[in-house]
Amino acid sequence: MNLRIPGPTPLPPDTLEAVGRQMINHRGVAFSDMFKEITAGLKTIYETENDLFVLTSSGTGGMEAAIANTLSPGDRVLAVPMGVFGERFAKIAQAYYADVVRLKVPMGQVADPDEVAKVIREQGPFKAVLLTQNETSSAVTNDVEALARAIYAAADPAPLILVDGISGMGAIRLQTDAWGIDVAISGSQKAWMAPPGLAFVSFSERAWKAYETAKNPRFYFDLGDAKKYAASGQTPSTPNVAALFGLQVSLRYMVGEGVEKLAAYHQQIGDYCRQSMLDLGLKLYGDPAHRSNTVTAVVIEDRPAKEVLKKLVSEYDIHCGGSKDPSVEMVRIGHMGYVSEADLDEVSKALAEILGI
Amino acid sequence: MNLRIPGPTPLPPDTLEAVGRQMINHRGVAFSDMFKEITAGLKTIYETENDLFVLTSSGTGGMEAAIANTLSPGDRVLAVPMGVFGERFAKIAQAYYADVVRLKVPMGQVADPDEVAKVIREQGPFKAVLLTQNETSSAVTNDVEALARAIYAAADPAPLILVDGISGMGAIRLQTDAWGIDVAISGSQKAWMAPPGLAFVSFSERAWKAYETAKNPRFYFDLGDAKKYAASGQTPSTPNVAALFGLQVSLRYMVGEGVEKLAAYHQQIGDYCRQSMLDLGLKLYGDPAHRSNTVTAVVIEDRPAKEVLKKLVSEYDIHCGGSKDPSVEMVRIGHMGYVSEADLDEVSKALAEILGI
Repeated sequence: MNLRIPGPTPLPPDTLEAVGRQMINHRGVAFSDMFKEITAGLKTIYETENDLFVLTSSGTGGMEAAIANTLSPGDRVLAVPMGVFGERFAKIAQAYYADVVRLKVPMGQVADPDEVAKVIREQGPFKAVLLTQNETSSAVTNDVEALARAIYAAADPAPLILVDGISGMGAIRLQTDAWGIDVAISGSQKAWMAPPGLAFVSFSERAWKAYETAKNPRFYFDLGDAKKYAASGQTPSTPNVAALFGLQVSLRYMVGEGVEKLAAYHQQIGDYCRQSMLDLGLKLYGDPAHRSNTVTAVVIEDRPAKEVLKKLVSEYDIHCGGSKDPSVEMVRIGHMGYVSEADLDEVSKALAEILGI
Repeated sequence: MNLRIPGPTPLPPDTLEAVGRQMINHRGVAFSDMFKEITAGLKTIYETENDLFVLTSSGTGGMEAAIANTLSPGDRVLAVPMGVFGERFAKIAQAYYADVVRLKVPMGQVADPDEVAKVIREQGPFKAVLLTQNETSSAVTNDVEALARAIYAAADPAPLILVDGISGMGAIRLQTDAWGIDVAISGSQKAWMAPPGLAFVSFSERAWKAYETAKNPRFYFDLGDAKKYAASGQTPSTPNVAALFGLQVSLRYMVGEGVEKLAAYHQQIGDYCRQSMLDLGLKLYGDPAHRSNTVTAVVIEDRPAKEVLKKLVSEYDIHCGGSKDPSVEMVRIGHMGYVSEADLDEVSKALAEILGI
């Protein structure tokens, strides 16, 4: 099988072996040692000294934790959705009764820092801005550094900056502290090469200040509770032990490589995937200046993408993602974490055969 | 290792092997077939034809889902805590701004159906009653059938009955439909013999009626969304695939056995554990008429329980739970799911040696 959806990603052999280890006591020393090591490793890749929590949920639960722990009903929030997952972030805020202003970015494009700053100046103050680092649905990546700089310049105090880094972090740098990101969220099944079911949430001093007065209900995702337990390497309720076993192994590799090398590898593999598709004469979706290094969206012109995806599965055992833009037929190819040029060559070869190129 | 905490429980070898399988596409056919099979299997053990959802979270997340999907801020709720986990259920309702009345049961005892009915008649109406089937912290089991009957007799319409069945279900019967339980919650790492990180939540017609008007914020745990996706064997966000791989294998065994046999086995193993401890001259904690078939609490009289627990780990690699009642030193022995008399013999032998019996 060649699993090329944009997460869950394939697990390296030694990670997979760790996932299949027998359960242990989540209140014992072996667990707390592992949990502390994982938290430290995540902070290294997050480039942060903020608190960082590992929650047992998918990435969406991490996004909900960001909203539940910083906001109150009625708080004004600026959402900048540029696709399905940005829209999800806005909807979570709305589910928690925030007053959400949307600066909608057309699919395939990225957020413009000047426009974001303009909305903050003209329609602010906002309690928080919701950004997406890498939008899986349209295969483009925001310039989070420039966006954060523009947000800090547009208001004082600046709104909290909450970033969905789920499908980017670990592969595309997000300098949490240097850029002043208050909450950055990611998920184990993406570039982290671990099974799904763990969300990572970093939490700044400014976020803790907001936490003190935030009235949104929270219990399972309460980061105050998480902080109390984390001090002794534990979690408030039973954690996703099997995924943690795997994450520990993958993280050791990632920390060993370091963020620069990880980012350089994903730049290279992203370039390789894009060039392979262009070499086949296929078109890529989205703004050429902001294409993602973790997922590539290829436009399918003469037939439904579903037909291509089905053949990829049935004839080649290659699993890709489908179109998330109702107006464009596309195949989305994931290339984050455990992926090689040979994996992508298989996809190119199969696509060429299916499309008769 | 002899993992005898009351969850996570040890995984049988074939379950463990499944947990270590390579990731698959959670939007593909192999996944949806598995997810549908698991949902059907859980409904069999739950003895229900109600909707049943599998969420990626620990059991606590399932308890939060029960509250978030049925209640609104200010709703009057009767909580009947008889230990740590019953208290947790009450706290979740409070975190969601419910008006919680507590009928506190002293630790080691179970809820009295007549008392519950009396409070409902005298202090009602209540929107919901929160019950614990099996209280892990005190090793006793409620008579949920009698409690439900009393609740239905005490008010018309009766309050919703939300039951934390996390550490009981799969080992101790809970006849969801026959007893009229509106929401029953359990968790994969208990008698279900799967890794932690999956919560199960059944949801009755009456619960759906409450859902329609419930104003508590919900997104990640929104069961309306879960229902839409479940129709095609999927989940709204990326599920805990590795735990589902394991659960599928364990559930096949459980469904093959059937609820009667599973309950009979746990009755037998519970009796065996209790008798072994009594044979050593040790005292058991809690009401003798309501002792749990999934966990046994043994009173430690002449030294701190922590000392005994540490020796069990360091000298025997046996992992038990500690005291949850600050006034009584105890060791709690889990015996749910994958457990044999030989596993318990090891515990007896080690305890005898440590305590010099």
